[in-house]
Amino acid sequence: MTTVQLKPNERIDQLSAQGVQIIQSSEVFAFSLDAVLLADFVRPNQRQQIKIVDLCAGNGAIGLFLHHKLGGHFYEIELQERLADMAQRSVVLNDLTSRYEVINDDVANVYQYVAKDRADVVVCNPPYFKNAPASQKNPNRYLAIARHELTIDLAMVCDRMSGLLKMNGRGYLVHRPDRLPEILATMTAHRLAPKRIKFVYPKPGMEANMVLIEAIKDGKPNGTRIMPPLIVAGEDGEYGPEVQAMLNGSNV
Amino acid sequence: MTTVQLKPNERIDQLSAQGVQIIQSSEVFAFSLDAVLLADFVRPNQRQQIKIVDLCAGNGAIGLFLHHKLGGHFYEIELQERLADMAQRSVVLNDLTSRYEVINDDVANVYQYVAKDRADVVVCNPPYFKNAPASQKNPNRYLAIARHELTIDLAMVCDRMSGLLKMNGRGYLVHRPDRLPEILATMTAHRLAPKRIKFVYPKPGMEANMVLIEAIKDGKPNGTRIMPPLIVAGEDGEYGPEVQAMLNGSNV
Repeated sequence: MTTVQLKPNERIDQLSAQGVQIIQSSEVFAFSLDAVLLADFVRPNQRQQIKIVDLCAGNGAIGLFLHHKLGGHFYEIELQERLADMAQRSVVLNDLTSRYEVINDDVANVYQYVAKDRADVVVCNPPYFKNAPASQKNPNRYLAIARHELTIDLAMVCDRMSGLLKMNGRGYLVHRPDRLPEILATMTAHRLAPKRIKFVYPKPGMEANMVLIEAIKDGKPNGTRIMPPLIVAGEDGEYGPEVQAMLNGSNV
Repeated sequence: MTTVQLKPNERIDQLSAQGVQIIQSSEVFAFSLDAVLLADFVRPNQRQQIKIVDLCAGNGAIGLFLHHKLGGHFYEIELQERLADMAQRSVVLNDLTSRYEVINDDVANVYQYVAKDRADVVVCNPPYFKNAPASQKNPNRYLAIARHELTIDLAMVCDRMSGLLKMNGRGYLVHRPDRLPEILATMTAHRLAPKRIKFVYPKPGMEANMVLIEAIKDGKPNGTRIMPPLIVAGEDGEYGPEVQAMLNGSNV
């Protein structure tokens, strides 16, 4: 691996299952289990000519987790300069510069970098929370932008996901299930047919706190598959075998 | 209990958990686990002045299962004369004639019997399958009508469910999750906000084959809760403890 310079309060985390190192910073952005679960949910596709786009890429974790599972070229779009810089250094750190392009711009401008109707796979771990005037936001601007729909909303995510994808290309989204009807309706309105949905439950007997969705651009309606539930941890709070396998013994 | 006359090939099944007896016939209509799960999913409401409507009531099983959980007056709407007759005799059999009215008519005509905007609870276990010209239908006309959208479709179910309910009344639907995006969109289009959703999986590691949905008429969008998954049976195919409790030892 190449050596890169860490900035203050940054660390390098390794997920042995994915064989990559990711530059993280709790002050700015650190990937969470959501990113690991979304990467795990993506179908493998080893073809080397495919194009993959990660919208709202953050520190690039999801794209980097996918470097073995997906062949082809990755475009990582991230609005926040500080995060895009972390993603770029992680790409260098993992010797993946020939396959990864980090783009520091608004997702709204993505067609300036990746042509419409050309992507095979688009992934997105967007901000989850609506920008309601009354809602409490993190005073840390980096984290507020990552969590609240301040600079992008679900409609824009779905619009660009759909616009980038080829017909029959696959879009992947991780989100909060309390917005499920809106999420499915917004995807459908943007020609993204939800085909495979997996609910993630923190513990046995608890309500789901995450949903993973695979959609096919211009796919036929219906035929939606609800995959077996993922229960993250046991009653004791320890990760169960499925999550352990994704992390391969590391702690996120 | 009162004695009633059974017709050829009818039997009486008892669910001890619900304390009711139901007239069944495999040739015409027999309730399945779907009905038991939907009744279990309904929130208790003991107020005696409430109105409950069961659309596509079949042999009346769901309404009858709810006789302890819900106070008030039940309207059971069933198009098929033979099934409505079974439901009527089950009402008599369980000495519930003072609280139950069986109506043998098309759900489309329901406002002739129950005024609009007056129901507190509407339940429905509708036909699951679209009436695609190419789709295989049961040659038994009774069963074909119960399973395929031959005489009613999802839009009509949601329209009448919504029309019957008071503002903030609760509608309950059991359906197939392969139509989930369409179901949620159709409910939403009819002022039914999906608030609580439970997926039912036949066995560990298998995809969901049933979905239970509680909607609130004119409820705020979002805030949807995905309840803990229900796994019907263990690897050995035997009902698990949750379903056993609903059936209380009986076999459906």
